[in-house]
Amino acid sequence: MEIAMVVYDRFTALDAVGPYEILSRLPDAHLTFVAERPGPIRTDTGFLAVTADRALDELPSPDLLVVSGGPGTEAQMENHVLLDWLRAADATSTWTTSVCSGSLLLAAAGLLHGRRATSHWAALELLEQFGAEPTGERVVTDGKYVTAAGVSSGIDMALTLTGRIAGDEHAQAVQLLTEYDPQPPYDAGSPVKAPAHLVEEFRAGGRFSLT
Amino acid sequence: MEIAMVVYDRFTALDAVGPYEILSRLPDAHLTFVAERPGPIRTDTGFLAVTADRALDELPSPDLLVVSGGPGTEAQMENHVLLDWLRAADATSTWTTSVCSGSLLLAAAGLLHGRRATSHWAALELLEQFGAEPTGERVVTDGKYVTAAGVSSGIDMALTLTGRIAGDEHAQAVQLLTEYDPQPPYDAGSPVKAPAHLVEEFRAGGRFSLT
Repeated sequence: MEIAMVVYDRFTALDAVGPYEILSRLPDAHLTFVAERPGPIRTDTGFLAVTADRALDELPSPDLLVVSGGPGTEAQMENHVLLDWLRAADATSTWTTSVCSGSLLLAAAGLLHGRRATSHWAALELLEQFGAEPTGERVVTDGKYVTAAGVSSGIDMALTLTGRIAGDEHAQAVQLLTEYDPQPPYDAGSPVKAPAHLVEEFRAGGRFSLT
Repeated sequence: MEIAMVVYDRFTALDAVGPYEILSRLPDAHLTFVAERPGPIRTDTGFLAVTADRALDELPSPDLLVVSGGPGTEAQMENHVLLDWLRAADATSTWTTSVCSGSLLLAAAGLLHGRRATSHWAALELLEQFGAEPTGERVVTDGKYVTAAGVSSGIDMALTLTGRIAGDEHAQAVQLLTEYDPQPPYDAGSPVKAPAHLVEEFRAGGRFSLT
């Protein structure tokens, strides 16, 4: 199975590396980080670069594509090289997926019109403006389109996909290998659960940049 | 705060990128991926390279160091350049931490003798042979030494550390930003919870390489 991890300047690292860690353990997986131009791609914080081993046009027909999100999404929504590649890759893919604001790129390419989908919680309104039907679920499957909520949710998406592709037992084996038995020390991981003033602060653009 | 993410050939990407995603959001964080030699470092699957921006000797005194694990650990346990650096960095660090089999490197450097610590579940026996006192907890704090269990547990460790360093509210804000509201589709993330035959298969070296 040919898997393409789509990245670009100022993507959010965990959006890609969460699913990578799970999907790379699929039987017969061949996974490649791809970007418009190959080479080191710097993430949103500036503190990390990952290597895109191939250019988009070197990998035109992946079986599974994962589009990451991050603050760099906004610039990419007008990058027609990327949007054209997404449309062409989607035409032959078995699974077209995204994490976080990566779904905005699928939507900008016209691939989520009328489909149930999700994104980072702060990007759901924008997703709707592109004609998708946002849901509050963490992982949303609509046919071959699988979208995940913010950043860390790509791990849950990838395990869900692994179960669909290789069976429950293989997915459980990967969960055991990666010791994915989450025990967060707080319960503030969604706007419903977090203290309301923090949610407001984010929406006002106060503490961190989100998109 | 100067943060060093210690990586080497065949480390496990999520071991580093989970904590990176959280710790890079600490106030005044300056985070650097470091390796014996700077440049692209290929992870355990072969499908991803991250850039070590600095050599170990360029960052001798981080405030916080995070040592990743992975199949490459075994070779590093005899790398005296790395072990010497760990001892020297630990002498002035505020926090010395690890994820997964990264704790074996701290132990090999003599830093965990007589301390409570953890590692990937399949590496706990080896950790004990180095004089540490393994526990079954996901995140173990013994003074300034904070060790995490396998792969994905570094996210929980980093949120715990963020709370200690910057307060509960900042940690909750980072949890909300990264939408860390885990909902794994299976409950097989520890040897206690996973189907027993999968645990046995791993211990027999059947399905995946673990160390």
